[in-house]
Amino acid sequence: MAKYALKIEYDGKPFKGWQRQADQPSVQQAIEEALGKLEKNLPSIVTAGRTDTGVHALAQVAHCELQKPWQPFRLCEALNFHLKPDPVSIVDVARVDDDFSARFSAVERQYIYRILNRRAPATFHKGQVWRVPYMLDVEAMQDAANHLIGLHDFTTFRSTMCQAASPVKTIDEARVEVHETLEGREIQFHFRARSFLHNQIRSIVGTLERVGGGGWTPEDFKEVLDAADRQVCGPVAPPQGLYLSKVVYLEEVFKGEGSNSGRSR
Amino acid sequence: MAKYALKIEYDGKPFKGWQRQADQPSVQQAIEEALGKLEKNLPSIVTAGRTDTGVHALAQVAHCELQKPWQPFRLCEALNFHLKPDPVSIVDVARVDDDFSARFSAVERQYIYRILNRRAPATFHKGQVWRVPYMLDVEAMQDAANHLIGLHDFTTFRSTMCQAASPVKTIDEARVEVHETLEGREIQFHFRARSFLHNQIRSIVGTLERVGGGGWTPEDFKEVLDAADRQVCGPVAPPQGLYLSKVVYLEEVFKGEGSNSGRSR
Repeated sequence: MAKYALKIEYDGKPFKGWQRQADQPSVQQAIEEALGKLEKNLPSIVTAGRTDTGVHALAQVAHCELQKPWQPFRLCEALNFHLKPDPVSIVDVARVDDDFSARFSAVERQYIYRILNRRAPATFHKGQVWRVPYMLDVEAMQDAANHLIGLHDFTTFRSTMCQAASPVKTIDEARVEVHETLEGREIQFHFRARSFLHNQIRSIVGTLERVGGGGWTPEDFKEVLDAADRQVCGPVAPPQGLYLSKVVYLEEVFKGEGSNSGRSR
Repeated sequence: MAKYALKIEYDGKPFKGWQRQADQPSVQQAIEEALGKLEKNLPSIVTAGRTDTGVHALAQVAHCELQKPWQPFRLCEALNFHLKPDPVSIVDVARVDDDFSARFSAVERQYIYRILNRRAPATFHKGQVWRVPYMLDVEAMQDAANHLIGLHDFTTFRSTMCQAASPVKTIDEARVEVHETLEGREIQFHFRARSFLHNQIRSIVGTLERVGGGGWTPEDFKEVLDAADRQVCGPVAPPQGLYLSKVVYLEEVFKGEGSNSGRSR
C-alpha cells in the first residue's frame, strides 16, 4: 500500500458537510467516489477536521491508501478529472509515510471567517460569506477578540452537541482584518489553535459581530467568555462564512509536487 | 416623472447577456420586472454598456423613470427585495436630472478581466474567472499591453459582428496586476477607454494570454495589433472572466445615498 495526503479545496454549499452519510451528499463521498474510479475496495479516507453543512475549505487535508503507486501530480490530475463537476478541487498531493495521519499528526488548525460588510445582497459570493448590512467596528471586534488568546474554558462558545472531552482549549491567534475587494468591504477573522470545539468559531464570530454592531462592548465579550455558560453566547454565525484554511503538521507535507503550479506550457 | 440612475452588480452566469430577449433570461428583464412591481407600464431602462452572455458587472449603470418620487435608499432596498433570488444587486441609486443618460452621458468605461492562474480547477470562482493552468509571465503581458495605449485601428481585436462605425478607438489604460488571493494566484487586466468595440477586451486578453504563456513575444503582439487584420487575432478569451467595473460621467453620479453602507445598526 502507498499512503498519500490530499490538500483539498471545496465549496460546502451543495454538501451536507464533510462526513459520509447514508442518504445525503458529502465531500468525503465525492472524493471517495473519485478514488473509487482508480481502485476498487479502498479503505475510507481520514481527514484533519470534519466540517459542518455549508462550511468550506481552502486547504482541508485527508489521507488515503492505494495499492498502486502514483506520481503525486498524476494522482492529483486524475482525481480532479473524476471530481467534475463538483466544486471540489485537489490542490496538492504528497506521498507520505505509513505512520502519517491527516487527523492525529496535525498540530494546528487555521480557520477564516468572512463577512461581506455592505448593504446590498451578495451576488458573486452568495453562500460563501455572511453578509452583514450595517457597518461593523473592526477595532472594537479586535479588542474583544484579544480576550480569546491563551488557555480558556470555552463552554460559552461550544455547541451543546460537542463531544470533546473538555471545554478547555488554547487559542493562539484571533486576528480581525479588513479587505477592500471588488465587491466592497470584507471583514476576515483569522483563528489558529491546536484544535477547536464544535461550533466554537461560529459562536465566537456571532458574538464578536454583536460587539462590531455596537450592541456589546469588548468588556461585555470578556464577561461572556469568563461566564463559561452556553446561555450567554451571542447568536451562532451562519456556516457559509467559515473556511478551514490550513492544517499544520510538524514537518511540511506538501511541497507543490502535486499542484505543479509552476509548470509552463 | 423622476429619473434615477442605478449602479448594478451582477453575476452573468444565469443570463443570456444584458439585453432583453423574447425567450431567454436577461439582466435587463430581471431589473425591469423588479421595477414593474413598483409601477406599471414603465419605459425600458437604458444602460451604459450591454454585456454579452456570461459577462459580469461590478458597477453597471442604467437609468429608469418613475412616476412616483422615491428616496434613493428606499428605491434601492425595494429593488433588491424584488430581485431575489437572482444574482443581481442594486448597490447604489441616485436621483438624476432629466437630461442625464446612462448611455450618452458616459465619458469612460472600465473593465477588469480575471484569470485564476493555477493548475487546480476553480471551485468558489467557477464561472467567474478564466482558469489558466500553466504559469503566465505577467511582465511580458504588461510589455505587450503597453502597445495598446493611445489611438489605434483595433480591427484585429474586433468581432466581425461589431456594429461600431469605426474600428479606431483610444485605450487610456491597459494594466496587468497580480493578486495573491485565498484561492491562489489571480491575474487581473484593467482597461480604461471612452468606449470599446464588440469583443475587444476578450480578443485582447486572449492574445495577451499567448504572450504570457510564451508562445508569442510582446513584439509579436505589436505586429498583430498593427496588422489591423481580424485573421491574426489570438483565440478570444471566454466571457466568464470579464467584468464591467466602472462607468465614468463628467460629474460624480453616485454619492452613496442609496447604498447607505455607513449606516449603523
